[in-house]
This record gives sequence, structure tokens and C-alpha cells, in this order.
Amino acid sequence: MASAASAWDRLGMHLRDTQLLGSIQSTLYWDQNTRMPSGGAAWRGEQLTLLARQLHARQSSSLYADLVAEARQAWASGEHCAQQGRNLDLLEQDLRRQQALDPELVASIATAKAKGYNCWQQSRAASDFAGFAPALQTLIDLRKEQARQLQEPRSCWETLAQPFEPDLNLKRLQELFAPLRARLPELVKETRAISQSRTMEWDLDEPAQQQLCEQLLRSWGRDSAITCMARSPHPFSITLGPADYRITTRVVPGQPLSCFLATAHEWGHSLYEQGLPDQSHQWFTWPLGQATSMAVHESQSLFWENRVARSLPFAHQWWQRFAEAGAPLTSAGDLWRAMNPLAPGLNRVEADELSYGLHILIRTDLEIALLEQGLAVQDLPNEWNQRYGQLLGVQPASDAEGCLQDVHWSEGLFGYFPSYLLGHLISAQLSEAMETEIGSPEEHIAAGDVTPMLGWLRQNVHGVGRALNAEDLVQQVTGRPLDSAAFLRHLTAKLNRLATL
Amino acid sequence: MASAASAWDRLGMHLRDTQLLGSIQSTLYWDQNTRMPSGGAAWRGEQLTLLARQLHARQSSSLYADLVAEARQAWASGEHCAQQGRNLDLLEQDLRRQQALDPELVASIATAKAKGYNCWQQSRAASDFAGFAPALQTLIDLRKEQARQLQEPRSCWETLAQPFEPDLNLKRLQELFAPLRARLPELVKETRAISQSRTMEWDLDEPAQQQLCEQLLRSWGRDSAITCMARSPHPFSITLGPADYRITTRVVPGQPLSCFLATAHEWGHSLYEQGLPDQSHQWFTWPLGQATSMAVHESQSLFWENRVARSLPFAHQWWQRFAEAGAPLTSAGDLWRAMNPLAPGLNRVEADELSYGLHILIRTDLEIALLEQGLAVQDLPNEWNQRYGQLLGVQPASDAEGCLQDVHWSEGLFGYFPSYLLGHLISAQLSEAMETEIGSPEEHIAAGDVTPMLGWLRQNVHGVGRALNAEDLVQQVTGRPLDSAAFLRHLTAKLNRLATL
Repeated sequence: MASAASAWDRLGMHLRDTQLLGSIQSTLYWDQNTRMPSGGAAWRGEQLTLLARQLHARQSSSLYADLVAEARQAWASGEHCAQQGRNLDLLEQDLRRQQALDPELVASIATAKAKGYNCWQQSRAASDFAGFAPALQTLIDLRKEQARQLQEPRSCWETLAQPFEPDLNLKRLQELFAPLRARLPELVKETRAISQSRTMEWDLDEPAQQQLCEQLLRSWGRDSAITCMARSPHPFSITLGPADYRITTRVVPGQPLSCFLATAHEWGHSLYEQGLPDQSHQWFTWPLGQATSMAVHESQSLFWENRVARSLPFAHQWWQRFAEAGAPLTSAGDLWRAMNPLAPGLNRVEADELSYGLHILIRTDLEIALLEQGLAVQDLPNEWNQRYGQLLGVQPASDAEGCLQDVHWSEGLFGYFPSYLLGHLISAQLSEAMETEIGSPEEHIAAGDVTPMLGWLRQNVHGVGRALNAEDLVQQVTGRPLDSAAFLRHLTAKLNRLATL
Repeated sequence: MASAASAWDRLGMHLRDTQLLGSIQSTLYWDQNTRMPSGGAAWRGEQLTLLARQLHARQSSSLYADLVAEARQAWASGEHCAQQGRNLDLLEQDLRRQQALDPELVASIATAKAKGYNCWQQSRAASDFAGFAPALQTLIDLRKEQARQLQEPRSCWETLAQPFEPDLNLKRLQELFAPLRARLPELVKETRAISQSRTMEWDLDEPAQQQLCEQLLRSWGRDSAITCMARSPHPFSITLGPADYRITTRVVPGQPLSCFLATAHEWGHSLYEQGLPDQSHQWFTWPLGQATSMAVHESQSLFWENRVARSLPFAHQWWQRFAEAGAPLTSAGDLWRAMNPLAPGLNRVEADELSYGLHILIRTDLEIALLEQGLAVQDLPNEWNQRYGQLLGVQPASDAEGCLQDVHWSEGLFGYFPSYLLGHLISAQLSEAMETEIGSPEEHIAAGDVTPMLGWLRQNVHGVGRALNAEDLVQQVTGRPLDSAAFLRHLTAKLNRLATL
């Protein structure tokens, strides 16, 4: 009979190979988005489907179930600490989910994701929603079937949102978003006076932008031995191994700060990953070493983008570097205003801090409608455009600028969008707690040293991993439940400052 | 009972998944060489080991053996054509080899390759052969064990060379190389008078070099939907899917033509892959759709590098473009001489056409000595340096410039180097046949149209795939057995021209 100790080891070895396979999948995804010629798409889709099948087989196998059960038995007999108990809770939850799924469905979803993504790329380029609609319908049908098979005591949308926001439900989501639904449109109206175009009248060439991005990450302590930067149509951050962190950005013509801010944003994601509990191979294996939710992830990227890079003291330190790179700036204020345009636009990724939330509210409502309220796929563009008109006062000239702009639905990612806005709330609430404990971010930025802030985040957020879910983490760090107050305070303060400077 | 037809289908499906896994492995290799930060190496090694284990398990499984046996039975009963018989021959040969190998050895080799490669990178940077020696010793031991387990009626070196040059043996190799051993050193001496340095007194900046490379491939009909270009420390060509062909190059300071010629070379490799028989998924699955040998591969890369890009008519067409990019050239002759330096140097990859063969003869002799004649690893640098002194009249100042310059041995690739020189012989002999049939390459280049040459290669070489091995292919296309006469004729003609122009 195997000893109790070896039950842990054997489970650990099984999980390690699962992580290896998962990280291979991520490497293929990285390549798909940064290098792969378009002709490679069909074969890549098949590679990803093969890996999805393999992963599902591993994660739902009776062999694996036995390993988890043995480890649970060892734990129940007093071995190991509470942390390992939490690891087992998370593994058991995932095992139940994997076992509930038909392998054919898993393969179909992987194939539909790859096809949907390619179809979306073509349809967006041609602004042809009708061409994309069948792929989207397939993804919705498959995801509904997935939720049905999972048989959780949750609605369809809630079930699909679990991988991104563990324990979130619709009631709580609407409670958190209600003050924003009320206040954001008012603020947009109030600030019409200080609005300005997001498209600058100047631009920076690509090498200049790249150099500024490299300077930024150097000043934030980037270690090039474990990180790399590339270009992709959609900026993202990804971790491919315990010492292999990558980010991508893009250069947008006419928006000379877009690449710089995207770099700050994606680097924030990467810092969270880099700071997860002990990224030795051992911890890389266990769930506790992983990110706890996409909203917490987003709170970290937003911290570095909005609290640091868009702050006034940051502009004081950087405006001359931008001027040297060719930007027609004559003061810190010039850069700061350029970093903080207020112009409700059509595009989520390029949106300002104020209107960003409205982009998310629209998407959240629409995907709940698609999954749970019978909104027909063909009616999506019309619904989308109406809401943009109502909430933001803008109308997409084409579906490429409208409901085809984001990649998420093309990969069947439903339940993901709210994390972006929850991230704003979390980031604001964490920033207030940081200020109380070690002084405001602005003071540290003015002092030219990000180390204390990074240290605080490492200790209070990154190092927690999945030991706590998002809301419990916020409660622990800030001493109160998550709400939208801090975010609205931050927005109001910034708007006042923009109006007076 | 399964029908005979379904035996083929089931075998095809199994092979297809094998190809998917193999191409995933290749994608990881591509990433490792083009993007991965150095910190990612250990985890990447584990990913590759996992895939190597999986692939070996698939390719040696009794399930797979049964599929091959069933297909063979169907074939014997008269189904399908001779081509499928050849496919089965090749599959059975590979199956025997895979079954002969201990899975632990397969995993150990994969791990040792990844470690060896990383160790080599560090040791080369530090010119520290002693630091690399243990990794090399491990690889030699593992490869010897592999040859032992394969139990073929061949010597150790011959066994290891089979994946690169099917059916090659040492006797035939020495027969083919003997005239070169005699003649090349003489030619080197004779041409001392017209020698010149390979390091130019001018350089081109990186963007200019990149633009010239892009122009070159555009003029050669590159389809960017199925190809991509990147940078890596060591230029290579790789195919990641039926419509996903990639090449890498590098910019070498002080050698403004290096990147351009490497692009021509790697593109030649890629054209061979792009022209393999019907790259539909079906054919991608079967061995006949693959390259027949590394020497044939090399013959194709050398054709575009040496016969085309280094030719005088090419210089006539391109010198002004180089001049516009900043090169201080005033005539086609200037570019042509710069493209054809004759200076025995220390580096294989940067070697001229004449001394290139000597680099290979040295490596071939040394790896046979390491594997079969008891040369001790620690004596390698000394042996290497002695031979370079004797044959090329140069002495490496460090092992980085000497026996640490090439990647091959660090990945345990023994038996590969001769393919490079055999590629020169094949390229020369094929070029003479091309000239007889459709006119000389120089005429086509002067006419500014590479299409007839590419068409001839497609029809006579690329489209043959693995239907014929390298020497049978040469016999079929040129009407006579492979030898070194055409290559020596080509060299002599070029040297005479260089001496007189």
C-alpha cells in the first residue's frame, strides 16, 4: 500500500504534468497572437483541440480522482496544514466540474473557439457581423450546454463566470454595479465641458514609442531574464512557466500614448503573476499558487496604468522624456492631460477611466441577455448601437467599431467582461488602503521610487494567491466589503483636478 | 470486424494526431529560439520532455503497431497503390526503431538536449569548454546507448545519421568526400592571391538589412499569409503546419550581407517544404509528404543562396538597391565580390563556398572520432584547433570561435554535419541538370524571373517528397550517381571568374 506521504507526491506529479500541458497550450496561444501567419490558423485549431482533449481527459480521469481522494484522506488524518486543505478544496471543485463535462463537448468548444476567433478576425476586418453570427451562435449554444452539464446551483451566466470570478453571483454583481449605473452617466454629462478628443494632434513613431515603453519597464524593475515583450493585435499578459512572463502591446496610429499605457497595464498583470506565492515548480503545481480572479488581476493592471502612469507626479517625471522622443509637450500638465482624455468613445480598450465602466455595463447586460434572456444573435448589433447612443452618446459607424471590437465572445468567453469593472472597484479600494498604510501612490511616484508600492502589493495581494477569493481578499486588506465608493471618489477627485488644472 | 478501408482511415487519424503533437514540439522549439526569455529554459525543457515521452509512447504503442499491421494486410490484399506501400515501408521502419527504444532513454535524451542547449549557450558566451564538457559527454553516452538499443546492422555513427540521411553509410560517405579532401585544400592555397576579408569595411543598419531581405523574398514570390520571418541567434527554417512556414535570420555586425544571404538560404529550405507533395492535411500525415533528407534540404537552400544570390547577374540586378540602402557600392562587380569573399575563416555559417567543405570535413571526422574512435571529450578543443590550423590555416583565439560555435552537438545531433557538404554536391549536380533542361540559372536570373527555376525544382525535387531517398533522387533527376565533380567544376569556374573580374 502506498504511504500517505507518497499520495501527496503522486498528486503533485500529476498536477505538474497537467500544468506542463496547460502551459504548452498557452505557448501555442501566445504564438497564435504574436507570430503565426494567418494560414496557420486551421492547424493551430487542431493542435489546441488535441491538447484540450488531453487536458480534460487528465483532469477528469479516475486515476486523478483517486489521487485527489488519497490526498484528502491523508489530510483528514492530520497531515499537512490548512493551506493544503484549501488546495484540495479547489482541486475537488475543479475535478467535479471536469467530470461533469462530456469529452466531446470539451473538444467541440476548443474547435469552436479557434474557428470563432478566426472568423471574428475576418468579420471584424470586413465589418461583417452577419459573417460572424453563425460562429457566435455556435459558441453560445456550446457554452449553454456546458453550463447545463455542470449542473451547479447557479444560473447559466453565473456558471460560466466562475472560472473568472469564483463565487460571484448576479445579485451581488448588480448590487456592486448599481451605483455606477446611476452615477457614471451623470459624471459623463457633467464633464462634457472638459472633454477633449482622445486622438492627439501629434504622434510618435514606432521606435520612439518602443523606447519609451522599455524605459518605463526598466524604471519599474523589469528583469529581462524572465520577461519578454512582443506585439499583438490585442494587448495581453501571459505566463508560460515559473520564470517566463510575457506581455504584448500594439502601436495605434494617432494615439501616441496607447502603447505606453498598454505596457503599463499589461506589466501590472505580469507583476501580479510574478508575485504569486513562491513560483518554484512546487507551487506552480498547486492551485494556491495561482491568481485568484480576473478582477483582482485587473485591479493590479489598472493600478499601474491609472494610479501610476496617469498620475500628475508621473507626468512631472516623464514629460521631458516624451518631449525628447518628439512629443510637442511643454509641461508636465500637457502630458498629464494627454494621459487623461475625457471623451466617451466607441472603443473599450482605448476608453478613459470614466467612460470605461459604461462599456462594461453594456457588455455585461448584453451577454446576460444573450445567455439568459433570449436576445437573438442577429439583434446584437442593433442593441449594442442603441445602448452606446443612450449611455455614451456615440454611434458606431460600423459593427467593426461596435459589437465586433472585442475578442472575448469570439472565443466563447462569457462572464469575463464584468471583471474589468470589478477590477476598477478593487483597485480603487486597495489604493485607499495602501495610502493609509504606507502613504499615497502619488507621494511614492513623486519620490521616484515604486519599490514601496510594489512591496505592499506583493505582501497584501500577490502573495495571497488563491488562498482567498476576490471579495475576501478585499475585506482582509481594506477592512470592509467591496463597494464602488472608493472608485467613485477617485473619479470625482480626478475630474475636479482636470477641470481646474 | 473493421473493414479494410477503415484500417487506412484509422491509421491516418493516428498519424495525424502524431503530426499534431510533433508540430507542437516544433512550435515550442521555435519559441525557445525566437522569443523565450532565458529564465524559461528549465520549464521549456520539461515541456519538451513530456512531449517526447508522449510521442514515443504513441509511436511505439501496440495500438499503433496493430494499425500499421492492419493497413499492411489491406495493402497486401491489393488495396491502394505502390505509393502507399512506400508509406508503409517508412512507417514500419520508424515503428521498429521506436519500439526498440526504452521510454526512459527517450525522456533522458529530451532532457539532456534541453540542458545541453542551455549549457552550450552559457559556455559559448563565456568561451568555457570545460563547463560544457560534462553535458556533451552525457549526450554522447545517451546517443551511443540509443544506437545500441536500435541494434541496426550499422555502426554507431551510421545509425545516428539515419534520421538525417536515410541509407547513408560511412564507406559511401568517405568515397563521396575523398575528392574534396584532396582538392579543396589545394584550391584554398591557389586562391590565396584573390583572397579578401569577409569583414567588410562598411555596414548596413538593421532596418536597411531587414528591408532588403523583405524585398528579396517579395521578388521570390513570398506569400505572407503562410510564412513569417523572425530573429534568432542561429538562422533556421521550420514548418509548423500545412500552411505555416517560418524562417529566422540574424544581423551580424560588420557583415552587412550575412542576414541577406541567410534569408536566401533559409528561404530555400522553406521553398522545399512548401513544395512537398500536396500539403493538404491528408498528405501532411503520411511520410511521403515529408522531406527526404537533410542533404536534399541543404541542396535547396544552397541553390538560392549560392547559385542565385551570389551570382553575377543577381549582383547586376541588386547592387543599386544595396547602394540606395547605404552600401558604398559603385558597380555590380562590387556587390558580387562582396557576396563572394574568399577568406578561410573560423566560422562555418559565415564561410565562403570554397572553405565551407573544410569546416564540414573537420566536424565529420571529429564526431566519428568521438562516437567510434575513442576521442575523449576533453581533447576535442585541441583536436579542433589543430585541424583548423592544418586545413584552413587559422587558429581560434577561443573555444567560442572554435568547437563551441555550432549548436548541433549541444542538442546531441551527431551525424548531421555531413548533410551540409552533401547538400553542396547535390545542389551542384542538380544545377547542371537544370541547365541542360531549361537553361542556366544565370540566364533566368538575368531575365529577372525565378519562376522557371522554381517550377523545375518543384517538379523534379520538391514534389518527390520521400518517394526516393537522396541518392536515388539525384540519379533520377541527373541520370547519374551522385559525386563531387559538378561541385568542383562550379568552384573552379567561380574562382577563375573571381580572379579575372
